[in-house]
Amino acid sequence: MIKVSVMYPNKPGGRFDHTYYRDKHMPLVKSLMGGACLFYTVDKGLAGGGPGEPATYVGMCHIYCDSVESFQAGFGPNAPKIMADIENYTDLKPVVQISEVVVGQR
Amino acid sequence: MIKVSVMYPNKPGGRFDHTYYRDKHMPLVKSLMGGACLFYTVDKGLAGGGPGEPATYVGMCHIYCDSVESFQAGFGPNAPKIMADIENYTDLKPVVQISEVVVGQR
Repeated sequence: MIKVSVMYPNKPGGRFDHTYYRDKHMPLVKSLMGGACLFYTVDKGLAGGGPGEPATYVGMCHIYCDSVESFQAGFGPNAPKIMADIENYTDLKPVVQISEVVVGQR
Repeated sequence: MIKVSVMYPNKPGGRFDHTYYRDKHMPLVKSLMGGACLFYTVDKGLAGGGPGEPATYVGMCHIYCDSVESFQAGFGPNAPKIMADIENYTDLKPVVQISEVVVGQR
């Protein structure tokens, strides 16, 4: 299994609507990707590692798929619709990473 | 529920032993933290978001706890033992972030 992490840097003055992201954008992604998205998770940044440090990312999602190929098959054709919705919740440019899920839950 | 993400930047020449991390370090963390760690997950970076882009993080773990307080109670007293094990798998300095789990799995 792989996960695609979309991580929005916590820039001063940046706009990020956590409610829209949770209630509208991510359900839209899941709905468009169908079975290619096995499931997804959403995080809201609270803090960094040290006392008083800000979170590196203000918000993140992680999209879990069987393989990179199944992600691309589910996401690719829907990318224009998904991308067009981004301005509705943020003006931040995300960092995107694909990872192998080495330990799913233990 | 909160998650503590420990993310190791994918620096050229950096050392990261994925097998040790999965088989020794993370089980040690779980064992020392006891019930304060509800569960954890481990990722191995495969790629970035664009064609040919490297992953931002070579490895990550996410430690799930009921609250920041329960994480601190479980991790704090064991920090010296956990920190002392880091040199066994990496010479990279991780980025640490605490997040609220907004959507656990959907």
